[in-house]
Amino acid sequence: MRKFVSLEDADFPKVLSYFDELDLNKKDLIMQAGNLCSHTYFVMEGCLHMYFTSKKGTERTVQFALEGWWLTDFLAHHNRTNTDFNMQAVENTKVLSITYGKQEQLYREFPILERYFRIIHQIGYGASLHKMKHLYDLSKEDIYLQFTEHFPEFAQRVPQYLIASFLGLTPEYVSEIRAKKRS
Amino acid sequence: MRKFVSLEDADFPKVLSYFDELDLNKKDLIMQAGNLCSHTYFVMEGCLHMYFTSKKGTERTVQFALEGWWLTDFLAHHNRTNTDFNMQAVENTKVLSITYGKQEQLYREFPILERYFRIIHQIGYGASLHKMKHLYDLSKEDIYLQFTEHFPEFAQRVPQYLIASFLGLTPEYVSEIRAKKRS
Repeated sequence: MRKFVSLEDADFPKVLSYFDELDLNKKDLIMQAGNLCSHTYFVMEGCLHMYFTSKKGTERTVQFALEGWWLTDFLAHHNRTNTDFNMQAVENTKVLSITYGKQEQLYREFPILERYFRIIHQIGYGASLHKMKHLYDLSKEDIYLQFTEHFPEFAQRVPQYLIASFLGLTPEYVSEIRAKKRS
Repeated sequence: MRKFVSLEDADFPKVLSYFDELDLNKKDLIMQAGNLCSHTYFVMEGCLHMYFTSKKGTERTVQFALEGWWLTDFLAHHNRTNTDFNMQAVENTKVLSITYGKQEQLYREFPILERYFRIIHQIGYGASLHKMKHLYDLSKEDIYLQFTEHFPEFAQRVPQYLIASFLGLTPEYVSEIRAKKRS
């Protein structure tokens, strides 16, 4: 938080008291499609992904969150509606979770956090417009190669089939590119 | 603004004084790829679109803004870097524009606007994750039909080739769907 806003040392425990800490095992689900989108999650250790099950029955990842990232279905959360997405731990993961109601209280006690989340969401929204550009502009091969070059940590930690899913590629296609790269 | 935050009547002229009003003719460019992303725009009347020129030389729209919407390259704006996008008036358009520096001053004078833009960006980011779902999940035909059903105003006001571009379809494909729908 200190990257974007100034918060007193003494305020951190107060801010933290709004959150619950959860230890998730790999593959644990913390959000399910069809349920009210009631929480926002912050990753302390590990990795989450948010995905949906397509009409054809395959799981497609729309967003990851590594350490220091926030994740929920931000639209359903704002509208207080049911979500279309599932959220799952990619590996053993430690998160902080906060309910919609507690987050509103938090904003009232610490209005500076409106600024913090304004910046977080501005970056998220801005980055998603750039992702759209990459998906439209690059060849399938370059989408994969640029992603793994820019985010080497993902390529090492996240299973290939999830990265393929996030980039709109098939796992078979990613295997082909990797084989080509090695040869 | 009043939809999301409470602001006194007397404060509106003060808020407005941070902005410049611009009258754009159809096709006028207000942001160009390669330049510093220095402004955020609010559409009062008309429509803007933000696009890039692909490696193949075609223009691809990543975002529209109708009346009441905010638009810029939010990532470049936050990072104070050059943008990869162009922004153009789709029709004769009246906008309010604000520089990065003035917007920071505005936040200092009216911190409640951090909340307003936090909500605006949260909705924008959330909606872009849902757009990703639609692009992955729907057939090309359904992408077009759902979009024009949910946003009939766009279908009426925005040229077909721009809607096609925004949805990742070719103009020829959109013509086919429309012909099929009519028959």
